[in-house]
Amino acid sequence: MSPSDHVQAFRDLLGAVGVVDDPQRLATYTTDQRQLFTGSTLAVLKPVTTKQVSDVVTLAARLGIGLVPQGGNTSYCGGATPDASGRQVVVSLERMDAIREVDPLSMSISVDAGAILKKVQEAAASAALLLPLSLGAEGSCRIGGNIGTNAGGLSVVRYGMTRDLLLGIEAVLPDGTIVSDMRKLRKNNTGYDVKQCFVGSEGTLGIVTGAVLRLAPLPVRRATAWLKLAKVAPLAELLALVRRESGELLTTFEFMTARSIALATAAMASPPSVGPGSGGAILLEFASSSRHLDLDSLMETILAETVEYEWVEDAFLAQSGAQRASMWELRETIPEGEKRWGGSVKHDISAPLSCIQRFLDVAGVEVRKFHADLELSVYGHVGDGNLHYNILVPQGTNRIAFTRLVEASLSLRLYDAAAALGGTFSAEHGVGRFKRHLLEKYGDPGRVAAMRRVKTAFDPAGIMNAGAVVRPLDPEPVY
Amino acid sequence: MSPSDHVQAFRDLLGAVGVVDDPQRLATYTTDQRQLFTGSTLAVLKPVTTKQVSDVVTLAARLGIGLVPQGGNTSYCGGATPDASGRQVVVSLERMDAIREVDPLSMSISVDAGAILKKVQEAAASAALLLPLSLGAEGSCRIGGNIGTNAGGLSVVRYGMTRDLLLGIEAVLPDGTIVSDMRKLRKNNTGYDVKQCFVGSEGTLGIVTGAVLRLAPLPVRRATAWLKLAKVAPLAELLALVRRESGELLTTFEFMTARSIALATAAMASPPSVGPGSGGAILLEFASSSRHLDLDSLMETILAETVEYEWVEDAFLAQSGAQRASMWELRETIPEGEKRWGGSVKHDISAPLSCIQRFLDVAGVEVRKFHADLELSVYGHVGDGNLHYNILVPQGTNRIAFTRLVEASLSLRLYDAAAALGGTFSAEHGVGRFKRHLLEKYGDPGRVAAMRRVKTAFDPAGIMNAGAVVRPLDPEPVY
Repeated sequence: MSPSDHVQAFRDLLGAVGVVDDPQRLATYTTDQRQLFTGSTLAVLKPVTTKQVSDVVTLAARLGIGLVPQGGNTSYCGGATPDASGRQVVVSLERMDAIREVDPLSMSISVDAGAILKKVQEAAASAALLLPLSLGAEGSCRIGGNIGTNAGGLSVVRYGMTRDLLLGIEAVLPDGTIVSDMRKLRKNNTGYDVKQCFVGSEGTLGIVTGAVLRLAPLPVRRATAWLKLAKVAPLAELLALVRRESGELLTTFEFMTARSIALATAAMASPPSVGPGSGGAILLEFASSSRHLDLDSLMETILAETVEYEWVEDAFLAQSGAQRASMWELRETIPEGEKRWGGSVKHDISAPLSCIQRFLDVAGVEVRKFHADLELSVYGHVGDGNLHYNILVPQGTNRIAFTRLVEASLSLRLYDAAAALGGTFSAEHGVGRFKRHLLEKYGDPGRVAAMRRVKTAFDPAGIMNAGAVVRPLDPEPVY
Repeated sequence: MSPSDHVQAFRDLLGAVGVVDDPQRLATYTTDQRQLFTGSTLAVLKPVTTKQVSDVVTLAARLGIGLVPQGGNTSYCGGATPDASGRQVVVSLERMDAIREVDPLSMSISVDAGAILKKVQEAAASAALLLPLSLGAEGSCRIGGNIGTNAGGLSVVRYGMTRDLLLGIEAVLPDGTIVSDMRKLRKNNTGYDVKQCFVGSEGTLGIVTGAVLRLAPLPVRRATAWLKLAKVAPLAELLALVRRESGELLTTFEFMTARSIALATAAMASPPSVGPGSGGAILLEFASSSRHLDLDSLMETILAETVEYEWVEDAFLAQSGAQRASMWELRETIPEGEKRWGGSVKHDISAPLSCIQRFLDVAGVEVRKFHADLELSVYGHVGDGNLHYNILVPQGTNRIAFTRLVEASLSLRLYDAAAALGGTFSAEHGVGRFKRHLLEKYGDPGRVAAMRRVKTAFDPAGIMNAGAVVRPLDPEPVY
């Protein structure tokens, strides 16, 4: 069969509206979020039911066609973008975006995998519940992608990653078998928890088509504070104190350096009055679903303690919803600030909390060794030991060329530093196509061997997102 | 080679002290916790290092000898007990019981898999941190077994299951490969999270030799209450109210029927003054690491609300450590109370919270249909949707014969009822040898198919705990 015969066969399954092969319309599906790589695809398939996904997979397996599952195409690691061969076919879940059920008593929500994160948050909120997954791309990323990358974001310190929220799953295996396990259960110890395999698998083990997610009571009290850090502030000690004294009502502990704050401020129409101390700043938030807790007073007590330790130069408690929103906007504008600057080379580092300070020291030395004048934007979810350690693209330099240069040299020194401290080269962004060589370099060989077994067990023909995450046991097919 | 040659080969590896084959000393390793089944073993191997475990596994693979990993041998499902063939060899982790490291700032503890749960709790507490895993067998169960069964227990409503606490792992695959991934990281999205495969695998995919567990701040404030439930009390609504109004400081929501309370009371030297209401009772606890929160006053406010709804007949706030301890002792003595009564047939049910009441209704009808005079002991971790729905062995009846009778008939009706409501036949006890047929009956076929692939991918020769959890793709070897 010729490529156009293949497209026709999929069209027979899905109808005309279910297959896109107009080259102009394909463009948004073939370039990754960070615009570092543009692949090619025969067509984009848009099934509307799990049965259709199964039919697509079965047909692809029969024809030997590689598939690339895609949600919102917001991967930072090229995990949802087809390769350059032009022989892979994108399977977009965007037409499967229904909220299937909110069950308030069970505190769960059941959705199609193509549901946009923000829509799911809203559906939960309309039942006075919280979907505690919140991240920059929430307006366009989709739940299937959140599962595929085990998305983290801004509430992990309290609620965990996507893995911790996943109660049930529906997925199509690479031979077309449907796994239908849309349970709402907190506890279900009946053998291997197969859904865990899909979490973080970035479309390489099958296609997730539905999910049941755990919800939490909707917070009705919030206290938000901005801490100007003293130069000496030890981040992990500060976190330990805040976590302990807040009784784990802590929901946010976001660190930002002065440079990151300046970049965000430059990109904001009305920047807030808060700024960094000599050690940067922390955005701190407590939240609770209880009307009976006075979080502002709790926050004030704890802030006083941090000032006493001389870790904090000054602290501001948000006095209104507008002040709170403006502190949050500052934090969330950093990536846009980096973009307006001219881009950054991103490093999604995590290290044990006890080694965060050491990582910052060692990494700083490596950066200066590489080039004396490089500028950094460092910020992140320090509550989880996660730092976005980004190198700003020097003005007047080609972003992609600079990225390639840094990633082939300095980046490896930074990952070496993280690895030496028991850290990792990818805290929340995943592996995708861009970081597969890093997994091979830094991953424990026994663990990688087990991964390869899992890959081959699920996908013996290697049709699912070949080129991403991990090599199968046998040589990878080229489609 | 003869069986005694095999034992000698293991002795050459481990030394005399590392191999037990004295028939009298073998007895404690070959009978399961509930004394429902006695298997047989050639020998018990007791390696002291991960390298020795790897050597044992490599040798067993070469000789074609089946292995049964064992921790504290407290499985309720016969998951740690060898079969009757006499050809399986038990690998006990009991000599690998070291606490490797407590890292207070990273809030993690690294241990050998043979460490007894209680020892790990104590090591955490000595650093002012909490290992939030607490269950009846904690004085004898071992961390490797907790991982193998994804142990739940008394704090799941706040802290989750063992899976949610596991940060890093060390394990030996069935070909002797060592997976060495003892990370302390909250976030490490670098491909498939292989450690998740081991959680709930009950020794069928390899042998866990070490683990890094997440710790929480140690609570310094606690409020404990005993709620006498009105007949009309809707459990899920009550839980939702308490969870919301307590701002998720809830750590315990344990339900007990009057019969379970009476059994426990009869087994206690000095039973407390609290008893059940007409709808049973709830043991409720809030805990916080913050000195600044007044949990007693929060509890009183919430109790008043539950009384207003007429869900609670009466409520008692523990006024001292002794009162608190006595409420807890009552709850924790229920299994012993059942034992003294003459035993019970246990059903470890879970259902979506919105269906708990419905399950109790349907199950009650099934029990009465089976026999008008059967007595029940029903209690459990209702905060997680988990009910221990136990049938008391009628006095004067043989326990094992009655168990076999009920499990072949009534138990299936109860599991049918749970399944029809989206529930499960095993919430926290696992599958082991006793419930494998239930997994085949109630498990989603797609999910079971994926499990079998995973089993065969990890253990192609089928040497690891054959007979437990799930059949491999190929016919199961008989050793």
